[in-house]
Amino acid sequence: MAARNAFYAQSGGVTAVINASACGVLEAAREHSDQIGKVYAGRNGIIGALTEDLIDTSVESAAAIGALKHTPGAAFGSCRYKLGSIRDDRAQYERLIEVFRAHDIGFFFYNGGGDSQDTALKVSQMAARLSYPIACVGIPKTVDNDLPITDCSPGFGSAAKYVATSIREAAFDLAAMSPTSTKVFLLEVMGRHAGWATAACALAAEREGDPPHILLLPEVTFVERRFLAKVKEALERHGHCVIAASEGIKGSDSAFLASGRQDAFGHAQLGGVVPLLSDLVSAELGCRCHWAVPDYLQRSARHIASATDVEQAYAVGRAAVEFAIAGKSAVMPAIRRQSDAPYRWDIVEAPLSEVANREKLLPSDFISADGFGITEAARRYLAPLICGEAYPPFKNGLPDYAKLQNVRAQKKLASEFAV
Amino acid sequence: MAARNAFYAQSGGVTAVINASACGVLEAAREHSDQIGKVYAGRNGIIGALTEDLIDTSVESAAAIGALKHTPGAAFGSCRYKLGSIRDDRAQYERLIEVFRAHDIGFFFYNGGGDSQDTALKVSQMAARLSYPIACVGIPKTVDNDLPITDCSPGFGSAAKYVATSIREAAFDLAAMSPTSTKVFLLEVMGRHAGWATAACALAAEREGDPPHILLLPEVTFVERRFLAKVKEALERHGHCVIAASEGIKGSDSAFLASGRQDAFGHAQLGGVVPLLSDLVSAELGCRCHWAVPDYLQRSARHIASATDVEQAYAVGRAAVEFAIAGKSAVMPAIRRQSDAPYRWDIVEAPLSEVANREKLLPSDFISADGFGITEAARRYLAPLICGEAYPPFKNGLPDYAKLQNVRAQKKLASEFAV
Repeated sequence: MAARNAFYAQSGGVTAVINASACGVLEAAREHSDQIGKVYAGRNGIIGALTEDLIDTSVESAAAIGALKHTPGAAFGSCRYKLGSIRDDRAQYERLIEVFRAHDIGFFFYNGGGDSQDTALKVSQMAARLSYPIACVGIPKTVDNDLPITDCSPGFGSAAKYVATSIREAAFDLAAMSPTSTKVFLLEVMGRHAGWATAACALAAEREGDPPHILLLPEVTFVERRFLAKVKEALERHGHCVIAASEGIKGSDSAFLASGRQDAFGHAQLGGVVPLLSDLVSAELGCRCHWAVPDYLQRSARHIASATDVEQAYAVGRAAVEFAIAGKSAVMPAIRRQSDAPYRWDIVEAPLSEVANREKLLPSDFISADGFGITEAARRYLAPLICGEAYPPFKNGLPDYAKLQNVRAQKKLASEFAV
Repeated sequence: MAARNAFYAQSGGVTAVINASACGVLEAAREHSDQIGKVYAGRNGIIGALTEDLIDTSVESAAAIGALKHTPGAAFGSCRYKLGSIRDDRAQYERLIEVFRAHDIGFFFYNGGGDSQDTALKVSQMAARLSYPIACVGIPKTVDNDLPITDCSPGFGSAAKYVATSIREAAFDLAAMSPTSTKVFLLEVMGRHAGWATAACALAAEREGDPPHILLLPEVTFVERRFLAKVKEALERHGHCVIAASEGIKGSDSAFLASGRQDAFGHAQLGGVVPLLSDLVSAELGCRCHWAVPDYLQRSARHIASATDVEQAYAVGRAAVEFAIAGKSAVMPAIRRQSDAPYRWDIVEAPLSEVANREKLLPSDFISADGFGITEAARRYLAPLICGEAYPPFKNGLPDYAKLQNVRAQKKLASEFAV
């Protein structure tokens, strides 16, 4: 059987390690040149496929591909673009198959979160209806860690390591300042619905009483009175209080605390809950507060990536290729935990139909009784995911990240497609 | 001559490397045990001296002292507490000498910024008036890099490396997202009056057009119309725009843009200018923005400290001891640059009278003609300060920072002193 080409694209919010998955895909594909011809990357995710804006990765050197393993962002551009149902957006799915046919694409790899896994599933369904032979494999990625089945989502471990490191460092700062100045420090952590990253901040505490003293998880309803009482208690016990707050915390009316704005897609654009909490604490408890919102910094901090996360991101990229050439489709490589300590894992296949559009929140047995912390079970789960350092190379004092040439492949279709 | 004891304390906002200076002081003092007996550290800066709350550092092991070199925060506690003039606060200065006399303190080391150098100077003046023999040596520290004479201030290089690394990483993220989503990213950088750290963000750009595209320096008056025009231009040229904004930018009325609150000392409590700018850009240019305020994270990020900065912080600590045992007083070890590339430096003495209370701002020849960037001269100055990595040890995936025992020395005075 002649080799057929592959399509790979990156989707959704990027991470410190999604390019490590790209590296895994591209390196594995090159090792199987008898079955996989060229790998075309979609410029800006699925949009690159719809508009036939395909990047020819075959012109990149092995060194350039290797450097993706230590480069944050999305080397081929990501997108916030969700395809609808096959019924509503049939023309888009037909267009995808038309482009794939024109470029003899026999392998479809889509690297993203829940929405992306849904897209990969629908592409496989549409291809079947149109009798177009293609292996569709999703590749997991999300800093939010909210994909089901897989033990964790590549991208999460590095964001978790970043926020736990940062809150430990800020706590050293606060402890030094608090006797005469600032008493409360608040760190805002990503995670619109799932509190995994906020929970990971608790790894900074080694002993009872160590900071962070309070977690505000999106899974737990925010009650102002209870929160203030908890801050007061921490101030009395420790002289200062370190708080990790999810951007997605909600009050008893189920509205986001920080829900002023909406993005272009109608999602509430979050960010900025800690200034509100800081004002609240200052006003009610009369103490000076500092707050930090790292935003993109937490999901792009490749300089403090988890080596475990980098390894897993790379491994799921490679596994996606292995699955595809083994004839599997509508699956996603999932990480399966074999043991907590030492952390042992392997990769299994998860059906996309069981992955797509299901959000994995913190289970209730991971949340402490008062709702402001995590349990030992949660610590056992989280601890291995941040382990190991995987520093990028540095040049002139800064991380030396790679940029690819991103050469566009010749178009084969006369028709344009507007997205 | 019998050995006399020393007093060391840390003051003002802490840094990633002020403990490296403490390490330098303590290690050098131990090497000169013929001249320096015990080193007492003030708990919470000068307040520890006033209240006779002295920490006996002699109980700490060499390993514990050595670990200070990789630990952020202030190991003995810092303070925001400024002594007034000798005329107004005479009782406080007399109390200091009383405490020093009780503990046979012959060496006074004060590690801080401009206010702290002023305190060290006044202690030396008061001691002279009271004929109390003591060598008073200031040790430079400030993330703001605003001390005069010294080539740079320990603490700055690490904060600079952190912000330049962070903005480079966030720019990779933004470049991936901008075709379909967020177009503008704003990073808020510390520096109430001096734009050194904001300027350092420009080191992330290697070539013309690289991000960050705009710096908002506190030395340059913020003009809304000019700022928006510059953002628009960047969006047209690059499709996205990365901005580093100093927390201290002011409008033409000389008021801080983010000047809602005041701290307990009547200083405007800054933080939160980028949410305002983000709203402005969204409203006027109609594009989606993200913003980050790292706050304490940037000054405590020991995990990404500059090796040059760590080395200098340690060296000024050692030099302070050398100066003191050589009989010098009312001086501060200052870093003198001998060449830019390779960066060569040594340590010279600066009279405290020329250091205290003088703020070194970005000179005009370091600021580009349009006010939104830096010149080649600025790059030559800044580049070596962020060079070299000096990773702390890690344990369980997180930096393994040291905590000292901080054992209190026996009080010798019956009188209490209220601060």
